[in-house]
Amino acid sequence: MNHNDLGQIGIIGNGSWGTAITKILTDNGNTIHWWVRNAASVKYLQERNHNPNYLTSVRFLPETIKPTDNLEAVLKSCDTVIFSVPSAYAQGVIESVDKSLWQNKQIISAIKGILPDTNLLLNDYLVEQFNYDINKYVSIMGPCHAEEVADERLSYLTFSGLNDKLTTAVANRFNNTYINTTHNHDIWGAQFAAVLKNIYAIGAGMANTLDYGDNFLSVFITNCYREMYYFLKQHFEKVHPSNERPDFHTSAYLGDLLVTCYSLYSRNRTLGTMLGKGYSVKNAILEMSMVAEGYYAARGMQAISRKLDIQMPIANHIYQVLWENANASDTFLKLEKLLS
Amino acid sequence: MNHNDLGQIGIIGNGSWGTAITKILTDNGNTIHWWVRNAASVKYLQERNHNPNYLTSVRFLPETIKPTDNLEAVLKSCDTVIFSVPSAYAQGVIESVDKSLWQNKQIISAIKGILPDTNLLLNDYLVEQFNYDINKYVSIMGPCHAEEVADERLSYLTFSGLNDKLTTAVANRFNNTYINTTHNHDIWGAQFAAVLKNIYAIGAGMANTLDYGDNFLSVFITNCYREMYYFLKQHFEKVHPSNERPDFHTSAYLGDLLVTCYSLYSRNRTLGTMLGKGYSVKNAILEMSMVAEGYYAARGMQAISRKLDIQMPIANHIYQVLWENANASDTFLKLEKLLS
Repeated sequence: MNHNDLGQIGIIGNGSWGTAITKILTDNGNTIHWWVRNAASVKYLQERNHNPNYLTSVRFLPETIKPTDNLEAVLKSCDTVIFSVPSAYAQGVIESVDKSLWQNKQIISAIKGILPDTNLLLNDYLVEQFNYDINKYVSIMGPCHAEEVADERLSYLTFSGLNDKLTTAVANRFNNTYINTTHNHDIWGAQFAAVLKNIYAIGAGMANTLDYGDNFLSVFITNCYREMYYFLKQHFEKVHPSNERPDFHTSAYLGDLLVTCYSLYSRNRTLGTMLGKGYSVKNAILEMSMVAEGYYAARGMQAISRKLDIQMPIANHIYQVLWENANASDTFLKLEKLLS
Repeated sequence: MNHNDLGQIGIIGNGSWGTAITKILTDNGNTIHWWVRNAASVKYLQERNHNPNYLTSVRFLPETIKPTDNLEAVLKSCDTVIFSVPSAYAQGVIESVDKSLWQNKQIISAIKGILPDTNLLLNDYLVEQFNYDINKYVSIMGPCHAEEVADERLSYLTFSGLNDKLTTAVANRFNNTYINTTHNHDIWGAQFAAVLKNIYAIGAGMANTLDYGDNFLSVFITNCYREMYYFLKQHFEKVHPSNERPDFHTSAYLGDLLVTCYSLYSRNRTLGTMLGKGYSVKNAILEMSMVAEGYYAARGMQAISRKLDIQMPIANHIYQVLWENANASDTFLKLEKLLS
């Protein structure tokens, strides 16, 4: 199969981002094999042509979507699968079917997290577990809250892949009047930026309820960006020294951090807001109907930064609130001293 | 006079930022000779101990301020003067008294703009006009809306000066429980960042009323930061090639851009909001009770970037709306294509 040709396209996941991606691709004339976790949602989609739980205002033309809860059937029908489940569930989904079904697929990752059991990005997991051909992998990142895609408000997505033809072919399927696309080769950096921004957004939410103001928040986010930039540069040097460095002052890196820290749509920011108000981590997570990726990301990045010996004091402090019972208010008193 | 010693301190200007600085310094035990433009405000301050027009909630202890509308008297009494008038009026204020009164002062600039008649930063103007000793100059920049200083919400200021002792001495006068300070040598970069952010914030305001969403705004601001970063680097290379480069991923650069673009306190953002709604530039400016520095800054930066041959497409497009009658909505349709 030629890399220009995406063949049949499947989408794995029916959360808000998976639903937004399905909207973009069906708006652009693609038919989507859509794996939806439970049979009730499949039936609802078939009968009422919209997702019962997320982006409920988005209507699909019945002929453009083929929803099913049979993952194996989707994989057997498709050449290209777009992976959009919370990273905490990704490994379970992958392991629920035979390995061979994944091995030859073009896998497009819309996951913004690290797989929790292995602390690996999806591509590194696939290569390690399946001897997967990394040239068939593309990530979709960028500052893009699904709710604004539902409203068709202009958004920018960055596609990263080592194979230019495939990456461009995928990006071209997304381009339309409300989606602008760019692409680069930086699978690792773009995904790590997306992981990190969720952790920092939890911090932004905490700062917000701890009654810090706009001045402080801008300083906090600036320091988060500096830490992210430092991590990305160090990661390149230590892990992929010969890879080409992209321009980190672009939307997939800084832009995604900004929208996640500032937008009220951000569920990670919301988690932080609740922690700042004094909710326990457990209760805050129970209260939220959607998974805040930053919770698991904080633990994953803690492990990765230790392994690579990269100092990340801000991410580490937020990790301590999330996983080691540190008090949010005390943590920010310490952070105040670190910022500049 | 030793550079560690600031001697008597004067503040020139009673706008919101000048009032905030007066609050910080008087809270820290300094007595301030305060030049206030009109006699009525002087009288009000003397009788009621707060500014009648800006940050009216801030009360001063009567013994800590010496308000007067006599600029010459302030300059004769002071060794150090903090300059905090809108850049559009700065030259008029300077020229209203004898040159010799400025020449030996330690001048601390809190101006976030370019002097409009000469398109120069205050330090360059002083050197050019008065053969001023640049080692006596310090700029105060940073993401710091005056309204949050009034509320004593933790804010960070960056002091830039070529003379470390003086710069540190000035910064130390500001440090307290709600002000954290840092310092560097980058007079030019820190001031240009402060100038540019006001232009970009006008754009952010326009985007807001033109109904772009959070996703787009984060992309727009990221591209503004990239343009700012590019300008600062080019400016160093072309004008001060031997100067030490600071870390631009810090609060005086990125942080100030963020707070000005995102905070509802930002008057430049407000100007953009009005232009996006269809107000003419003239009417929008008339409606605002405070000067939006970005209006003049756009014209100044247009001249400077041309002279130095530095491409700044975003700043240039905003200039065209402000000064050449370009339509805000059409301008953003063009900008959409430039962003990534």
